[in-house]
Amino acid sequence: MPDAVDLIRTKRDGGRLPSADIRWLIDAYTTGAVADEQMSALLMAIYFRGLDPAELRAWTRAMISSGERLELSGLAAPTVDKHSTGGVGDKVSLILAPLVASCGAAVPQLSGRGLGHTGGTLDKLESIPGWRASLANADIIRVLTDVGCVICAAGAGLAPADRRLYALRDVTGTVESIPLIASSIMSKKIAEGTGSLVLDVKVGTGAFMPDLASARELAETMVELGNAHGVRTSALLTRMDTPLGRAVGNAVEVAESVATLRGKGPADLVEVTLALATEMLALAGIDADPAAALADGRALERYRAMIIAQGGDPAAELPSAGHAEFVHADTGGWIRALDARAVGVAAWRLGAGRARKEDPVSAAAGIICLAKPGEQVQVGEPVLELRTDDPARFGRALEALDGAIEIGMNPPEPVPLIIDRIG
Amino acid sequence: MPDAVDLIRTKRDGGRLPSADIRWLIDAYTTGAVADEQMSALLMAIYFRGLDPAELRAWTRAMISSGERLELSGLAAPTVDKHSTGGVGDKVSLILAPLVASCGAAVPQLSGRGLGHTGGTLDKLESIPGWRASLANADIIRVLTDVGCVICAAGAGLAPADRRLYALRDVTGTVESIPLIASSIMSKKIAEGTGSLVLDVKVGTGAFMPDLASARELAETMVELGNAHGVRTSALLTRMDTPLGRAVGNAVEVAESVATLRGKGPADLVEVTLALATEMLALAGIDADPAAALADGRALERYRAMIIAQGGDPAAELPSAGHAEFVHADTGGWIRALDARAVGVAAWRLGAGRARKEDPVSAAAGIICLAKPGEQVQVGEPVLELRTDDPARFGRALEALDGAIEIGMNPPEPVPLIIDRIG
Repeated sequence: MPDAVDLIRTKRDGGRLPSADIRWLIDAYTTGAVADEQMSALLMAIYFRGLDPAELRAWTRAMISSGERLELSGLAAPTVDKHSTGGVGDKVSLILAPLVASCGAAVPQLSGRGLGHTGGTLDKLESIPGWRASLANADIIRVLTDVGCVICAAGAGLAPADRRLYALRDVTGTVESIPLIASSIMSKKIAEGTGSLVLDVKVGTGAFMPDLASARELAETMVELGNAHGVRTSALLTRMDTPLGRAVGNAVEVAESVATLRGKGPADLVEVTLALATEMLALAGIDADPAAALADGRALERYRAMIIAQGGDPAAELPSAGHAEFVHADTGGWIRALDARAVGVAAWRLGAGRARKEDPVSAAAGIICLAKPGEQVQVGEPVLELRTDDPARFGRALEALDGAIEIGMNPPEPVPLIIDRIG
Repeated sequence: MPDAVDLIRTKRDGGRLPSADIRWLIDAYTTGAVADEQMSALLMAIYFRGLDPAELRAWTRAMISSGERLELSGLAAPTVDKHSTGGVGDKVSLILAPLVASCGAAVPQLSGRGLGHTGGTLDKLESIPGWRASLANADIIRVLTDVGCVICAAGAGLAPADRRLYALRDVTGTVESIPLIASSIMSKKIAEGTGSLVLDVKVGTGAFMPDLASARELAETMVELGNAHGVRTSALLTRMDTPLGRAVGNAVEVAESVATLRGKGPADLVEVTLALATEMLALAGIDADPAAALADGRALERYRAMIIAQGGDPAAELPSAGHAEFVHADTGGWIRALDARAVGVAAWRLGAGRARKEDPVSAAAGIICLAKPGEQVQVGEPVLELRTDDPARFGRALEALDGAIEIGMNPPEPVPLIIDRIG
């Protein structure tokens, strides 16, 4: 039987962990035979030494094997999912899942909760009265069969080892490791049972990966992992220096998603959504035009059906905040930058996000970007609208926005939103 | 208040930890506010990033402050202690403490238990019928006053944070870090209250530090730490490629120590003991000739008084083992090498050492080196005598000795036992 201390020392000294030992380790951690303090030391050693492709495949396979794998092969439609590494104002999933379903694919979007400055898809949808994130496996398959798409919480049965590891990484400073991020995301997505997967790897100030080189490495690592486990996988690298669309929060993002499904979406949000839809349909082997499905209302219809299937009322009024404050332009000119991370942190502090897993979130809190990079403002014109239920939160939210808006005499150089495709 | 995750990330990314944060961290770990899994991740980050001199001083100071510090300044004689990083057959303490005491210094030798292939001084002395390792602080001072030397267990009140940290490092693969080793040793020695300290840092196959460069770095780090905390500290780097003396075990090492105190010690053991005694007396400011004190029986007399003061009977017969096996020379010639680590591991497997802190040790088990490097043997002549209470242990002990003895046509090049002095 392997010895945990030997495995830690092997990784620490730059050696390779055999696949069987990795499997033993993840199993022993799940049963408690390997202690948290041993696993966290190993995670830190992995932070410094990495995992080679064979180790990473074994690590991911062991996490998948720690739980159940959804069986979606009985569905008539090809399954395809999307995962984003997280951005500010990133409500793409809400539009994309019904859009791709309306083109003939089945989209099983099993999600986690948001933590930190990027919001969570489930938190956003929970601002719709009656909507339920938690579904039994049989209900997931039923909604997928009837509607073609489902956005719900990943059950505790999928990759439970990842759940424990993620909580451990969060408190031990071992989150920012490409192999650990890749195996965490991919173990859940592979266990979810999708046939194809498109990754939206965000790059920029508001993204988890601020620089292009590490975002590319993460994307390549995940694409390789997915394909190695039989899931057709590709990735888009997309820009995340400023919020996507104009709304950042929960209910405000739902409203913007519905507007987009009605054909009135902001250009950047539409561009990223269509690029991901095209990529998903290609992987699923479906020849369809997602722009047409968005324009003619088929996607909106599918969205409504999805909300209703999960207990929500798509016609219900969304919660609105009792208090608002504005940030004004301190000079006239072109908005040259509006920092995504600052806006994300401010929305979080207004109540839209959570600091700890067990915290509640405010459905109504958030920020509306009244002006965005590439647009002109007059001095004193409002640029950001901050909304919250609790006016005591404005102070620290405004602090986060200090220096977030850059106004100049010339418009910013246009930068492409879709940086690259990997796969 | 500092945040544990921030401190872990700072060290992980190569930053400096402020002294106040280190103090907070060690205190919070002692009270349980910082969890084992956070500390082990930090220890692994320290393994990779190290601690600079200011961090290391703060870390050591915090460990000392976690408990009491013995007050020995009331003693008439200057206090001086020795610490060895551990070697095979290293029974120097048993001879050195009474020898230096007989020259006029007070020697407060507070020790830990042996773990792994190097034996523990307390385990050796416990083979003497009646002898007690645990003394109350008042008794330590009484024995020091009456006899001039004491070898006993370091109480739980000295550097308790180190006790927890050491146990954690042992199970998390974070033992082999020079700043962590240095702060562990020095926090206990400084808390013990000695005025001066000589470190015997072993180098070679049987030592904790196999190579000269890391042994030198460890010695320099500890000497700097001791002096920074007001303890006059120096170090000798000594060779540990083959066992020191001929006896390896517990009772067998006590017997060899007594023989040495009677003037019949093996040359290598006498040389290291006198070099350390000379160094200790110089630091203590005492002008005396330890060779004379060893030759004229003063040291032996002091040894007997020390054993009696701790309940032992120096005249009692020592336990002897019921079973013996021999390893014979497979060819005639000069012994060129007798690997210290192999002999240490074999003695451990015979029962002389423990794998876990709570394991008992056998007083009688051990190995006698009948021939050592630089001596000639005939083919078939016995080189090692293995002794144990449990003949089932011979098999794995003999396995450890496979390839440990090198016999050649020429004698080995003589190498100096004392490599260097630091301080």
